[in-house]
Amino acid sequence: MNAPPTQIFEPRDPDFESKVRKSFGLQKVMSTLGIDLSSVRAGEVALRMTHDDAFTQQHGFIHAGVTTTALDSACAYAAFSLMPQDAAVLTVEFKTSLLAPAKGIEFHFCGQVLKPGKTLTYTQGYAWASDGPHRVLVASMTATIMALHGRSDLRL
Amino acid sequence: MNAPPTQIFEPRDPDFESKVRKSFGLQKVMSTLGIDLSSVRAGEVALRMTHDDAFTQQHGFIHAGVTTTALDSACAYAAFSLMPQDAAVLTVEFKTSLLAPAKGIEFHFCGQVLKPGKTLTYTQGYAWASDGPHRVLVASMTATIMALHGRSDLRL
Amino acid sequence: MNAPPTQIFEPRDPDFESKVRKSFGLQKVMSTLGIDLSSVRAGEVALRMTHDDAFTQQHGFIHAGVTTTALDSACAYAAFSLMPQDAAVLTVEFKTSLLAPAKGIEFHFCGQVLKPGKTLTYTQGYAWASDGPHRVLVASMTATIMALHGRSDLRL
Amino acid sequence: MNAPPTQIFEPRDPDFESKVRKSFGLQKVMSTLGIDLSSVRAGEVALRMTHDDAFTQQHGFIHAGVTTTALDSACAYAAFSLMPQDAAVLTVEFKTSLLAPAKGIEFHFCGQVLKPGKTLTYTQGYAWASDGPHRVLVASMTATIMALHGRSDLRL
Repeated sequence: MNAPPTQIFEPRDPDFESKVRKSFGLQKVMSTLGIDLSSVRAGEVALRMTHDDAFTQQHGFIHAGVTTTALDSACAYAAFSLMPQDAAVLTVEFKTSLLAPAKGIEFHFCGQVLKPGKTLTYTQGYAWASDGPHRVLVASMTATIMALHGRSDLRL
Repeated sequence: MNAPPTQIFEPRDPDFESKVRKSFGLQKVMSTLGIDLSSVRAGEVALRMTHDDAFTQQHGFIHAGVTTTALDSACAYAAFSLMPQDAAVLTVEFKTSLLAPAKGIEFHFCGQVLKPGKTLTYTQGYAWASDGPHRVLVASMTATIMALHGRSDLRL
Repeated sequence: MNAPPTQIFEPRDPDFESKVRKSFGLQKVMSTLGIDLSSVRAGEVALRMTHDDAFTQQHGFIHAGVTTTALDSACAYAAFSLMPQDAAVLTVEFKTSLLAPAKGIEFHFCGQVLKPGKTLTYTQGYAWASDGPHRVLVASMTATIMALHGRSDLRL
Repeated sequence: MNAPPTQIFEPRDPDFESKVRKSFGLQKVMSTLGIDLSSVRAGEVALRMTHDDAFTQQHGFIHAGVTTTALDSACAYAAFSLMPQDAAVLTVEFKTSLLAPAKGIEFHFCGQVLKPGKTLTYTQGYAWASDGPHRVLVASMTATIMALHGRSDLRL
């Protein structure tokens, strides 16, 4: 009755991992913020980032918008991993809940598909701060992601 | 019957503008992203940013997380402008709707208080892209902002 | 720089008002909850409801889910009013902010299109409680609404 | 790295179950909509509802606002179950994602605490439709819930 079980998804594009890595590599903001791809699976993408003072808010924590940037990419690429080859990916909207200050040495982000669809894919994401051995959940996101089909100008 | 009229708010801290400017100046991510304060009024804060390829997603538009970073600060400081002197400001959650690609030369962000409160303040924000004479609405946000009272470690 | 000006929209279906009224009339939950259509304009729909104890939460106020039911229909029909004749309307997601207790004799709801689109339309909505002469803003919503084209089984 | 593990919470009020059942019983809208409490645990509340045409939208599915009404109460009472005895519970905001049409004979709703707090508790909820043996996930919610302390007029 509780949280939906982790789902196994069948990717429609067998080369989904290289497609996700290629598109991620084109997001210049990822290298600017020092956000890396940790893993790509069908319907789930994980990212990580190291603390950098350049991205902090007034209390010295990572700004909620930076956490959101990583979560949005994790969710959008989780959705993209299940899209067919001709689709481009766009975020429709997201909500971020800031559960705790983003305070730590390293940050981990995971985006997962909750419900795939031809046009819209629903995703959820979680962010953790770690300071060595243990992790603290610092943010959650739900995001609606859209597939644009047949837009050769926007492939990826 | 339609959109709520622009409201006039009475600030509880007469020095609200300098307080907002000081806290904004402490957000290192603002200078990293090239986001500037345009105006500070009681209950309304405007920011602006110039396009920079370093902050783009895979199609060359400004990443939704960067737009969100500016909107979150605009909304949080709009709320902060109405808080008493001893309060620190934290974002509880926000939702961003991505209405159009963030494509332009300059971006404008406005955060407004919809409903102030002792503990929680509800805000909404809008982002526009401009390419010279005209503007396009590219994103909207609603954000819940919290006042932390009597936290001398987190003033601002 | 502040809130987006009220927009004038050109309806694609000249019979948009009768289409909205017909679909609204098919929502049995509207009559169950005593929610009526107040006005239908291109891109804007207003509803109203009278307080009824049957729809209250534990403190005697109208339940947030009931306010949301009215706001969702107001937003969805605002979007539907701008869709072409062959489209059916579905809500993708919404967020409701509960600004104040829904306490009053009468309630007014307004849904407005913020950004129309072929597939997705972005809307915002507001709810007011009134107790005679003056009104209090009690809730706001942002909702993403989808047009389904060519689904003869789901027309309206 | 993926979804946060189910958490074990220590209730601050040993009588949390009777407190939740009492407050739920005061929500007149629950009996109006035919929504029942299935189970109450510390940090998790489940509800159920049978399909009734009186609560449908134009295509004959349960209206998204009705699903939201159940999810909001499930989330709010999950949060309430972890609050101390003197607290009253209020919803700050929620977002509902409509993953699939709410079409079925019976509906199940589960609200869970993601992060408890003195003032604010973050929750998430899921809704399933069932038609006999199998279930379909039809909606998800994230909700921010507030504890009001020392309000003897609003206990529960």
